[in-house]
Amino acid sequence: MGLELYLDLLSQPCRAIYIFTKKNGITFQQHTVELLKGQHLSDAFAQVNSLKKVPAMKDGDFILTESVAILLYLAHKYKVSDNWYPQDLQARARVDEYLAWQHTTLRRNCLRALWHKVMLPVFLREQVAPEILAATLAELDMTLQLLEDKFLQNKAFLAGNCISLADLVAITELMHGLGCHSSLSPLPETGGEWS
Amino acid sequence: MGLELYLDLLSQPCRAIYIFTKKNGITFQQHTVELLKGQHLSDAFAQVNSLKKVPAMKDGDFILTESVAILLYLAHKYKVSDNWYPQDLQARARVDEYLAWQHTTLRRNCLRALWHKVMLPVFLREQVAPEILAATLAELDMTLQLLEDKFLQNKAFLAGNCISLADLVAITELMHGLGCHSSLSPLPETGGEWS
Repeated sequence: MGLELYLDLLSQPCRAIYIFTKKNGITFQQHTVELLKGQHLSDAFAQVNSLKKVPAMKDGDFILTESVAILLYLAHKYKVSDNWYPQDLQARARVDEYLAWQHTTLRRNCLRALWHKVMLPVFLREQVAPEILAATLAELDMTLQLLEDKFLQNKAFLAGNCISLADLVAITELMHGLGCHSSLSPLPETGGEWS
Repeated sequence: MGLELYLDLLSQPCRAIYIFTKKNGITFQQHTVELLKGQHLSDAFAQVNSLKKVPAMKDGDFILTESVAILLYLAHKYKVSDNWYPQDLQARARVDEYLAWQHTTLRRNCLRALWHKVMLPVFLREQVAPEILAATLAELDMTLQLLEDKFLQNKAFLAGNCISLADLVAITELMHGLGCHSSLSPLPETGGEWS
């Protein structure tokens, strides 16, 4: 059995992996795990990922979870173009730096904004106190400022002069939040080209 | 100028880096950034790390932040023993999986427990509502259970049969929390040896 990916394309990290595989010609068998139907909580899926989260990967009998770990695994195994995860020590460190930073900042804050502005009030009909929503959006604004000041600066890409895993992980989060916060639109202008 | 590290050994990620350098004979110039004195918030330190957090690393004119990225950089640059961050695709992926997972789980929950049980009530004389403290400790318990069920299982180490960056990052968090939560003492028995 070859590569299998358990995804729901509603999920930002799943989309990062999906785009990465398509862009790099990596073939796989896709298993859709529908979050809205709670399929990630099923006993069947728990056999694949006891954390009950997508994405998950099976490569033969090797099971891997955590989107960043899966992206690194695929980048190494399929020997993709160097820009995605550079061999150069400092260039790679810049990608690692962003991938570590984003867990508790951009990912967390985009997710919270989506829940507080859309998922809870619109889909689940649960009120979110205005001060909680305001705090969530203020925190997201601070994170977006850091993203620009610390990582993007006046460059086209976050961690070098070409697209890397850092950009892919960032853009799927940013696009997800576009519908729920004005700070996310428009994105800063860039002059670079996608590889 | 050689390797410089900006650390406060009160910080768990700083201790992980400090132990890693000492264990692997990596020499560096240490700059202590005292968190309790707010030195991480100073303009001088912001020149090193605009995120105003320790640890930070300077290697010549290359500045790097985020403890996981610094550990990976040091492991690559100083060609440390393979067990810390294995070359083998699957073994390395297990380390990456833990390093990705811990940001929003063990690190977050140990930190919250410390603040809610010790820092706020004891050092800052601020009350923490009992239900908030209870929720924090319950979340930490769930995380500890996942740590054991998903990663440690009945093995001596988190991501293989020898110590890796995953264990180092985990143990500094767990030791930090020992004083504030009974679930953290004793740790599960292991039969393995440290390299």
